[in-house]
Amino acid sequence: MTKRALPLSRVYRLLEPGPVVLVTTARGGRANVMAMSWHTMMEFEPPLAGCVVSNRNYTFDILRATRECVLNIPTVELAKQVVGCGNTSGRRVDKLRAFRLTPAPASHVAAPLIVECYANLECRLADTRLVTKYNFFVLEVVKAWIDPSRKDPQTIHHRGMGRFMVAGRTIRLPSKMK
Amino acid sequence: MTKRALPLSRVYRLLEPGPVVLVTTARGGRANVMAMSWHTMMEFEPPLAGCVVSNRNYTFDILRATRECVLNIPTVELAKQVVGCGNTSGRRVDKLRAFRLTPAPASHVAAPLIVECYANLECRLADTRLVTKYNFFVLEVVKAWIDPSRKDPQTIHHRGMGRFMVAGRTIRLPSKMK
Repeated sequence: MTKRALPLSRVYRLLEPGPVVLVTTARGGRANVMAMSWHTMMEFEPPLAGCVVSNRNYTFDILRATRECVLNIPTVELAKQVVGCGNTSGRRVDKLRAFRLTPAPASHVAAPLIVECYANLECRLADTRLVTKYNFFVLEVVKAWIDPSRKDPQTIHHRGMGRFMVAGRTIRLPSKMK
Repeated sequence: MTKRALPLSRVYRLLEPGPVVLVTTARGGRANVMAMSWHTMMEFEPPLAGCVVSNRNYTFDILRATRECVLNIPTVELAKQVVGCGNTSGRRVDKLRAFRLTPAPASHVAAPLIVECYANLECRLADTRLVTKYNFFVLEVVKAWIDPSRKDPQTIHHRGMGRFMVAGRTIRLPSKMK
């Protein structure tokens, strides 16, 4: 990988704009991946992210059992693979292989990093209080990786029913907000 | 207002892409507004959204006391006002007036709709279990309004430290995902 470690204090800058992410998990040496957009930052540092993973998804059981995952952030070049991951179930398909997504070992968790994604966030499950009622998992990001050559990544943002907004230009304003 | 009601089943399409929102609240006849990006959808219908409002913000106390708010979604034309709202506190400034944001009465809550925003989501507080630990509020959207003339709204997405990504083009793919 040509990625480098990203300081954990900067993780919020990747998730806060709301990109679709690819969630990888692993159990018994077998990896899975799903597309997911229902996530939010919850704390700057250590970085916490909350996300909804439906209990109809194969990932739900693996995440609850292994308490680990990786949030991989794709850009528009991977849009077809993202939709492919969303249209199939890991119960029946080895999705990483089917969609030619290259796994690489993570440093802190068993779930793999997806090489083609411009950033990868290794996560451990931090709070399960809202899992039963809302399928809502609180994750702590324990290690973050980024491709330093991608300054304005063209992330994709799900608008529903097959429509994705592609990240446009970046503007700067005199904000005091972190 | 030139807005019309949006079916609640479509609310997720507005929040899922991750735009900055302006949260309005009201107490004792006085309205307030803050900029917020830490939110996620949690359920399709009735639509639930989770969000983090820091307990350092004036909005935190009002939201917890009144259990109501409106999530107003601005587009790039309002970027300066959004940053203005983020840079000031409602404890000291009447922000709607200071930033020339026009309030309009909501139908189900006391907090006002912001006329200049292309969509407005009237919300009631639905779950407070994660408020103490994470400042995380679960909201139910009880009424939604949209400007039907805005097909591809140029929402803004916070990248941190004064940088905002402006929504770019929309692509369509053969997705089975809702």
